[in-house]
Amino acid sequence: MKNFDINEDPHRRFNPLINEWVLVSPHRATRPWQGQNEKIHTDALPEYDPACYLCAGNVRANGEVNPKYESSFVFENDFAAVKQEPILFEEDAKPTFFKAQPERGIARVVCFSPRHDLTLPEMDLPGIETIIKTWQKEYTDLGNVDYINHVQIFENKGSVMGCSNPHPHGQIWAQSSLPTQVEKTQNSLKAYFEKNNSNLLLDYLQEELKLNERIVIENEHFAVLVPFWAIWPFETMIISKRHITKITEFTSEEISAYASILKLLTIKYDNLFETSFPYSSGIHQAPTDGEEHPEWQFHMHFYPPLLRSASVKKFMVGYEMMGEAQRDITPEKSAAVLKALSEVHYKNK
Amino acid sequence: MKNFDINEDPHRRFNPLINEWVLVSPHRATRPWQGQNEKIHTDALPEYDPACYLCAGNVRANGEVNPKYESSFVFENDFAAVKQEPILFEEDAKPTFFKAQPERGIARVVCFSPRHDLTLPEMDLPGIETIIKTWQKEYTDLGNVDYINHVQIFENKGSVMGCSNPHPHGQIWAQSSLPTQVEKTQNSLKAYFEKNNSNLLLDYLQEELKLNERIVIENEHFAVLVPFWAIWPFETMIISKRHITKITEFTSEEISAYASILKLLTIKYDNLFETSFPYSSGIHQAPTDGEEHPEWQFHMHFYPPLLRSASVKKFMVGYEMMGEAQRDITPEKSAAVLKALSEVHYKNK
Ligand SMILES: O=P(O)(O)O[C@H]1O[C@H](CO)[C@@H](O)[C@H](O)[C@H]1O
Ligand SMILES: O=P(O)(O)O[C@H]1O[C@H](CO)[C@@H](O)[C@H](O)[C@H]1O
Repeated sequence: MKNFDINEDPHRRFNPLINEWVLVSPHRATRPWQGQNEKIHTDALPEYDPACYLCAGNVRANGEVNPKYESSFVFENDFAAVKQEPILFEEDAKPTFFKAQPERGIARVVCFSPRHDLTLPEMDLPGIETIIKTWQKEYTDLGNVDYINHVQIFENKGSVMGCSNPHPHGQIWAQSSLPTQVEKTQNSLKAYFEKNNSNLLLDYLQEELKLNERIVIENEHFAVLVPFWAIWPFETMIISKRHITKITEFTSEEISAYASILKLLTIKYDNLFETSFPYSSGIHQAPTDGEEHPEWQFHMHFYPPLLRSASVKKFMVGYEMMGEAQRDITPEKSAAVLKALSEVHYKNK
Repeated sequence: MKNFDINEDPHRRFNPLINEWVLVSPHRATRPWQGQNEKIHTDALPEYDPACYLCAGNVRANGEVNPKYESSFVFENDFAAVKQEPILFEEDAKPTFFKAQPERGIARVVCFSPRHDLTLPEMDLPGIETIIKTWQKEYTDLGNVDYINHVQIFENKGSVMGCSNPHPHGQIWAQSSLPTQVEKTQNSLKAYFEKNNSNLLLDYLQEELKLNERIVIENEHFAVLVPFWAIWPFETMIISKRHITKITEFTSEEISAYASILKLLTIKYDNLFETSFPYSSGIHQAPTDGEEHPEWQFHMHFYPPLLRSASVKKFMVGYEMMGEAQRDITPEKSAAVLKALSEVHYKNK
C-alpha cells in the first residue's frame, strides 16, 4: 500500500478556528476548465469619476452630498442591513423551529481615499496608515455604543466579490450579537485558552514560523501565511506577532508595519495574475462587549476566489455547500507561489 | 418603542439543522444594484452537440467513448476530487494545528438523459423517475463499498454555479468520512432524537404544514418549503412526509410523487425570471456506515443564487464570510412568490 503523501494524495485538513474540515485534492489542479470565465476589467479608472457616488463632492444614491474629503471618509451605509432603532421584543414560547430575534446595528462605508483609481496595493504607506487609524477610530466609536457588541470591518474587492462600486472602499457592520463565524472562532479560542492557558493563534504562528512552509511575508510585527486549513486557493491570514486582542492596541510602529504588510500582500496578489486581484477581507478581533478577551488575537482574513487565471475562479458550490469546502492546490504550493512573487507592483515595472 | 415585526425589522433567525444564524434584512430588498450582472444564456441548445463530452457516443476529455445511452448514464468522474486507492496512514503525534488524514472515495457523473437540451423541468416524468432510480442504485452500490460511509448526490446547474457543461447532469461524491455539513446536520438530528424521541425534520414539517406560510408545493408524499432559516433568496427544501431515512426506502408511488414535485419545483424556478434557473441542489440522507439512523429524514436542498432577475444574484461575500449569512427578502415573501408562480413552464405557454 502507498504511504500517505500530503502533497499528492486526497486528504482532509482540520480548521481548529471553526472546527470544520476541508477536502484537499492536490492531483485535481490539472483538470481542464470549460466553465464560466469572469469578465476582466482592464480599463484604467480615472482619478475622479463624476458618476461615482463615493467620490468627493459627489451626490450619493440617497441625495446626500459627500464632503470634499482628502484622506479616508466614513459615512452611514445608505442601505444598511441593520438599523439603529430599538425594537421591543418578547421572546414567546414558540417551538425551537421558529427562533428569531431582532438585531440592532450600525453599518458604515469607509472610502479609502478620494482617489477613484487607487486600490490598497497602489496607495502610499501614509494613506494606508490613515485607513488603519480610521478602523481604530471606528472600532472605538462603534464599540462604545451601548448596544454594540461586535464590530466587523471588511472589504469586498472586485465585481466578482459583489462589490458594486469600483471606488476603493470597505465596510463596517457593527451589531448587538456575535455573528456566527465570530462566535465559532471565539468558542475555539476560548476552549484552547482554558485548556492551555495560552493563545491558539499565537501558538499556531510560532509553529508556522518554525516550519516556514506557509509563510508568505514577515516583518518585525506581523506575518502573512496561508493557513494549513485554507479553503480558498490563495487564502491568507495576517497575524500580529505580539499578543494583541484588538486593533486599538497597536503602537504607531505597529500601524506602520501593518500598513507595509497590507501593501506588500496586495501587491503580490495583483502580481499573481497581473490583474486587480479580487477578494473579500475582514478583521477578526475581540468583541466590544466590555469583557476581557485574552483568548483573542488580532488577525485579518483574505478570501480571494481566483484559481488559475484572472478569469477562472474556484466555485464553492454543490459539494462544498452540501458537504464541505474543497480545494485543488495545496496551501503549501499556494504559499510558495505567493512568496516567490515580486514585491513591486506589475504596473510599475 | 416599536414592536418587533418580523416582516419589516432586521433580525436573526436560527437554523437548528446546523446551529447557525442568518441575518435577515427585509427592508434592504429595495437597494439599487450597480454591481456585476451575470451573463444570460438564451440560445436554445441543440438536442445533440457533437462537441459535448457528455452526449451519447461522444469522446470524453480522457479519451473514453460514451456508450449510445438512452436514459440516464453514469460514469466515473475523469477528474475526481477523491481516489479509490487505499493509503497507508499513521497518525503521528503532531500538534493539533496540523491535523490531516487521507480520504478515500469515488466520484461519479450522472447524465440525466441523452438529450443535451433537457433540464429537469423540461423532462417528462418517466425520465425523472429514471434519474431517481439511478440515484437509488448508486446509493446502494456505492454505499456497499466497504470504505464508503457517505454518498453525496448533488447537481450544479448553470455556469454561475460552476457547472462546466450545459448537458444536464449531476454528480455523486462518495467517501469514507462524513462531510462537515452532513456531520453538523447529523449531530443536530441526533441530539433532537435523543431528547424528544422524535424526528426533528418530521416535527418541523408538521408545524410548517399547519402554519402554511412557507409551503410552496405539496403532494401526497412530499412537501417543498422555504425553510424558516433559509439563506439563499429562493432556497427551498423537499421533505418526504413519511419517515424515510434514505432514498432506497421509497415505494414506487413515492418515486412518482418525488419526480412530480421535482418537476413542479424546477418549473416554478424557471418561471420566476423566465430563465433556465441556476442552483446547486443536493440530497441529505442517512450515511452508509452500516448503522441504524432513525434520526435522519430524507430531504433535498436547493440553493439558487438569483435575487432580483435572471442576471442579478446574491453575493455571499465579506460580511457573510467573516460574520454570517445575510438575506434581503424574507423566506415568507419568497415562498409566496414561488407558490404563486404557474406550474406550466414558460416556454410552453
Ligand atoms: O466537478 P465540476 O462540475 O467540474 O466542478 C464544479 O463542481 C465541484 C463540486 O461542487 C466544485 O468543486 C467545482 O469548483 C465546480 O466548478
Ligand atoms: O453592501 P454592498 O457592497 O452593496 O453589497 C455587498 O456586500 C454585502 C456584505 O458582504 C453583501 O451582503 C452583498 O450581497 C454584496 O453585494
